[in-house]
Amino acid sequence: MTHPLHDTTIRGFASDNYSGIHPEVLTAIATANDGHQVAYGEDAYTARLQEVMAGHFGEGVEAFPVFNGTGANVVGLQSMLPRWGAVIAASTAHINVDEGGAPERVAGIKLLTVPTDDGKLTPELIDREAWGWGDEHRAQPLVVSITQSTELGTLYSVDELRAIADHTHSLGMKLHLDGARISNAAASLGVPLRAFTRDIGVDILSFGGTKNGAMLGEAIVVLDPDASAGLTFLRKLNMQLSSKMRFVSAQLIALLDGDLWLRNATHSNAMAQRLRAGVEAGLADGSIHGVAFTQPTQANGVFATVPDGVADRLRESFRFYDWDAAKNEVRWMCSFDTTETDIDAFIEAIKAETSR
Amino acid sequence: MTHPLHDTTIRGFASDNYSGIHPEVLTAIATANDGHQVAYGEDAYTARLQEVMAGHFGEGVEAFPVFNGTGANVVGLQSMLPRWGAVIAASTAHINVDEGGAPERVAGIKLLTVPTDDGKLTPELIDREAWGWGDEHRAQPLVVSITQSTELGTLYSVDELRAIADHTHSLGMKLHLDGARISNAAASLGVPLRAFTRDIGVDILSFGGTKNGAMLGEAIVVLDPDASAGLTFLRKLNMQLSSKMRFVSAQLIALLDGDLWLRNATHSNAMAQRLRAGVEAGLADGSIHGVAFTQPTQANGVFATVPDGVADRLRESFRFYDWDAAKNEVRWMCSFDTTETDIDAFIEAIKAETSR
Amino acid sequence: MTHPLHDTTIRGFASDNYSGIHPEVLTAIATANDGHQVAYGEDAYTARLQEVMAGHFGEGVEAFPVFNGTGANVVGLQSMLPRWGAVIAASTAHINVDEGGAPERVAGIKLLTVPTDDGKLTPELIDREAWGWGDEHRAQPLVVSITQSTELGTLYSVDELRAIADHTHSLGMKLHLDGARISNAAASLGVPLRAFTRDIGVDILSFGGTKNGAMLGEAIVVLDPDASAGLTFLRKLNMQLSSKMRFVSAQLIALLDGDLWLRNATHSNAMAQRLRAGVEAGLADGSIHGVAFTQPTQANGVFATVPDGVADRLRESFRFYDWDAAKNEVRWMCSFDTTETDIDAFIEAIKAETSR
Amino acid sequence: MTHPLHDTTIRGFASDNYSGIHPEVLTAIATANDGHQVAYGEDAYTARLQEVMAGHFGEGVEAFPVFNGTGANVVGLQSMLPRWGAVIAASTAHINVDEGGAPERVAGIKLLTVPTDDGKLTPELIDREAWGWGDEHRAQPLVVSITQSTELGTLYSVDELRAIADHTHSLGMKLHLDGARISNAAASLGVPLRAFTRDIGVDILSFGGTKNGAMLGEAIVVLDPDASAGLTFLRKLNMQLSSKMRFVSAQLIALLDGDLWLRNATHSNAMAQRLRAGVEAGLADGSIHGVAFTQPTQANGVFATVPDGVADRLRESFRFYDWDAAKNEVRWMCSFDTTETDIDAFIEAIKAETSR
Repeated sequence: MTHPLHDTTIRGFASDNYSGIHPEVLTAIATANDGHQVAYGEDAYTARLQEVMAGHFGEGVEAFPVFNGTGANVVGLQSMLPRWGAVIAASTAHINVDEGGAPERVAGIKLLTVPTDDGKLTPELIDREAWGWGDEHRAQPLVVSITQSTELGTLYSVDELRAIADHTHSLGMKLHLDGARISNAAASLGVPLRAFTRDIGVDILSFGGTKNGAMLGEAIVVLDPDASAGLTFLRKLNMQLSSKMRFVSAQLIALLDGDLWLRNATHSNAMAQRLRAGVEAGLADGSIHGVAFTQPTQANGVFATVPDGVADRLRESFRFYDWDAAKNEVRWMCSFDTTETDIDAFIEAIKAETSR
Repeated sequence: MTHPLHDTTIRGFASDNYSGIHPEVLTAIATANDGHQVAYGEDAYTARLQEVMAGHFGEGVEAFPVFNGTGANVVGLQSMLPRWGAVIAASTAHINVDEGGAPERVAGIKLLTVPTDDGKLTPELIDREAWGWGDEHRAQPLVVSITQSTELGTLYSVDELRAIADHTHSLGMKLHLDGARISNAAASLGVPLRAFTRDIGVDILSFGGTKNGAMLGEAIVVLDPDASAGLTFLRKLNMQLSSKMRFVSAQLIALLDGDLWLRNATHSNAMAQRLRAGVEAGLADGSIHGVAFTQPTQANGVFATVPDGVADRLRESFRFYDWDAAKNEVRWMCSFDTTETDIDAFIEAIKAETSR
Repeated sequence: MTHPLHDTTIRGFASDNYSGIHPEVLTAIATANDGHQVAYGEDAYTARLQEVMAGHFGEGVEAFPVFNGTGANVVGLQSMLPRWGAVIAASTAHINVDEGGAPERVAGIKLLTVPTDDGKLTPELIDREAWGWGDEHRAQPLVVSITQSTELGTLYSVDELRAIADHTHSLGMKLHLDGARISNAAASLGVPLRAFTRDIGVDILSFGGTKNGAMLGEAIVVLDPDASAGLTFLRKLNMQLSSKMRFVSAQLIALLDGDLWLRNATHSNAMAQRLRAGVEAGLADGSIHGVAFTQPTQANGVFATVPDGVADRLRESFRFYDWDAAKNEVRWMCSFDTTETDIDAFIEAIKAETSR
Repeated sequence: MTHPLHDTTIRGFASDNYSGIHPEVLTAIATANDGHQVAYGEDAYTARLQEVMAGHFGEGVEAFPVFNGTGANVVGLQSMLPRWGAVIAASTAHINVDEGGAPERVAGIKLLTVPTDDGKLTPELIDREAWGWGDEHRAQPLVVSITQSTELGTLYSVDELRAIADHTHSLGMKLHLDGARISNAAASLGVPLRAFTRDIGVDILSFGGTKNGAMLGEAIVVLDPDASAGLTFLRKLNMQLSSKMRFVSAQLIALLDGDLWLRNATHSNAMAQRLRAGVEAGLADGSIHGVAFTQPTQANGVFATVPDGVADRLRESFRFYDWDAAKNEVRWMCSFDTTETDIDAFIEAIKAETSR
């Protein structure tokens, strides 16, 4: 296979995991190659990753590299819960709608879900399911799981997160954060990673690498060691233990030991803003018709409704997904490798299709 | 991270997963990069992998790339069984002793294990647990799982495998093969991959890439579509679905579309033979004392007992594992990147340590 | 223990499982005693139960006695689903809120829940979650589970059930009915048990005995043998297989072989009506103040809101539960052994407490 | 159903759960009837059961009534283990061979089994699997489970049990005792129940009622509260929580508050001794040929090999099971209701069939 099997110049707006590997990450994989390293995490790269994570999140954190986001979420949550525990989450949470029931089936976790407008929980929304402790008939709500940035492209402010953390802890529960796009959140908030995680009380974090330029690799980051038990064993028995772990860790190091994580996230966020701004300008000057935004654009995803038929016509040239087909709602995701040219071409296409 | 964090010249005999990535595999990852590809397996590389697998195993097979061997085994076995099914396996099987209980915990599979001398089941050994169908008090034995080459470095002959397959099927059971080192088996047997799998009746196969030069990547290969159900769903809900799957598939293509799989396996087997031959020569000429082989060396692993204290002294220079510390039994594994120089140096060290 | 440890004259309105054993059921247990009978269901009583069930539900049905309602629901549902299946249910369903997460934890079933006003699904409500077949990221909706009479004391009409069954089947899904209070439903509808179950398309039924006068005993009734697989094994491995099963079956026979099931249910329904009528009369004549009914009273439960403080004061003499404490909503359940005197005394108490 | 459906005069030797309810237990059920009692264990009978258990096992114990022995074992063991825990047991243990895989499937427990001659573990046998703590690849052995009296009708002495308990605890593991026939053990040992359980270090006990005269009912007895967590929740989510629990508790009280437990067990043990003695006498005087005992008769079961064809001919009149059909080994179980006449008739039949 000396030539790629696909056209390497085509990009779309389907998902940030349609993109490939950032060149610096690929270089890091190659750099970690050759020679023998202890398998299953006793290697120099996984050791170094601990230092890099401590640089971001502070002393005492521990990072467990895993293969994918579902693995990070499910294993991390399981480590936070006894067998009778339940997790309060937004009904739009990835753990609820996009993991094939893995939390329930693999980890035996009951999800107590709450509808939201924007993918964001609040103390009040948490309270809808935060009750019934001690009642054996009710799966016990012991963890709140939030996503930052959310599955709807929205963002919790630091204050909003602190309020959730305080409320969660005041009820004796723990706080889990699904950070599949945590770098986008930090870039958008303009604060360090720890400012909206460890500093405000997040206990366990799924740190996402794949959607921000890695080939594959996430980490369960234990911010509060008292909030988690048995991760070493749980990662293995849940089939998330990589033998040649050095290559997963090396990718995360490539992102985090330096500013690649932030450069990539800042870029993909900026591309989403450029897309939104371009469409808004088109709506203002009449070159685009009938497009409306359904969520704020606070990270790297744009959610909008489009006129009938427009989505399918646009997809003849640019891949993206329907979010809610019944409402003509679509999701346009930007990635670390999305270019200004990509955005501008897409805006032109939107103009062309909505001006018919 | 511009420089490696480890000494890339040091190799040992601990495990074939202490090695890194074969350069051709790394190149394949790079070649598959850039541009956007559909996530979760709808990419050109995973499609091509199907063709490559068909070239080896014949038309009608289907390959499901997964992250690791435990994932391949557990998800593959689960797809072969109803919830009340059990698996007959050698007590030394990786699924029994090295997967942290994942088959039981994640897949709800009861293992019915049989002691063996050499890691190999026989029809007679299978019969010890092949009974009780219809009895609701007994987990129903519906699958036999064997490993080729085995965890003890031994090999089933094609005839032995055919006898097992015929017996298994005659009892209404299905046959699973853990092929974490299937390439070593093919190289040693000197036959095509299908000659001892599909052709003799293996139903579902875990095809191992990681131990043979991949960074990470295995595949559940469905040889008999009637033997498996729901793999698409099971892979996802068991957290083994890679988003940027093109990079897992590209690695398997790099191994299998051409002869890299065979070159690597032939080499690691040859290194094991060189090690054994060297030790045997040393025993014969008196330069080595007190080493005895506990298993035939039929693939890339050498199992031996050594005099008291020798293992620890050897490990000051070469990493390897005790297999049964109580018996001074050790395992020396060779890899695709083991060199003749490595072997010869190790033999010299054995001489030095056992001639004391 | 020659004397009871409790006051056998006190009854309340907490739950129909606060009541004891109907004398005819107790006699049936005693009648089935003495001598030896094959354990685990190969006894004469379990055989007879099949005939009795066939008398109610028609030829070809099969009944699997189990210990309790959670067992009936979870094992029955599990038998209807592959490992990747999900169940659509009302958010108020017992399987969602009162089984400690057993469906998720024990059976690996994801529940897709829909809010309702009255505990009743409709085709339209089902459609909110009936989508995504074939998408591996989504737990596959393959069963709809409804409760009749519902957890809110309401009742589906035969036509409503038929519409649900038709819709469910038209989508390729199966229909499960939680019949913990199915006898109350039949009594209220005034139709045979099969008229609103098998005849309209229910596939698998949890038949409730405990709440209608049994000591303990429910049955999973397979109305469509094609809708369920492996119940024999699943009942055992889910720890719901009674060794001395003759005594569970004898209780169900006592209820069903004759009209005890109907007498008991008709009586408890009538007591609920008497309670409601009495309160309504009190409201009309001004002897009761501030009580409002929150659900129709269609079976043996009355749901109402009461003025602040009234619930606690009433509970000094009569046990019952809050349903939604935040709204002062209470649940008053009647049982087979509730007497007119009980009801009238309770109405008087309501008058006394609400006229203050 | 005014007449029994079976011949209430026929008894056999198949199992102690082929028998019915002891009349005193039936009376206790009736006595606990009438009036309302709080469901799910908050009743006067379950409270009294705690006192009765404390009388036998000492202050501080807690008893959780459950439906059956599999439930008691699985829920009890699960409460002793983290998700990564494994249980060391004899390969003949009921949890391994007769529970349909429930420990693995429902509780996610890996069993590490050891072959024995007589169903009894020893410290040396435990050591075969008691290793590998801290190794994430190995399910962690954290509990030893033994059965007293064993599934082979044998008995641990108090000293043997103490040695096991001491060894188990010295390794940091906990000790579980499957006491499905614990009363037979106490009767045979001639010591109080606590002498070979709490006093020597058993942590959690499955107390068996069903096989000793109850209709149905076992209890998980927590002898060391530090050895178990979350039983309240685990019992519910594992579907072992009885709503009308007073009737399960009343049965256990009937057995234990007084000496019915001991009378029943002493009787069934004596019947087994009578059977063995009668056969031995027949062998000695030549009236019985070819019968050999395969285990000591230390409780209520007799294990023997019989000449070809004898088992089937005997079964024309007396039910019993093959234990190992390949060896003509049979199991003859005596129950609380086995009579001397039953035994003598059976001995005569053995004479008749083996003297042919």
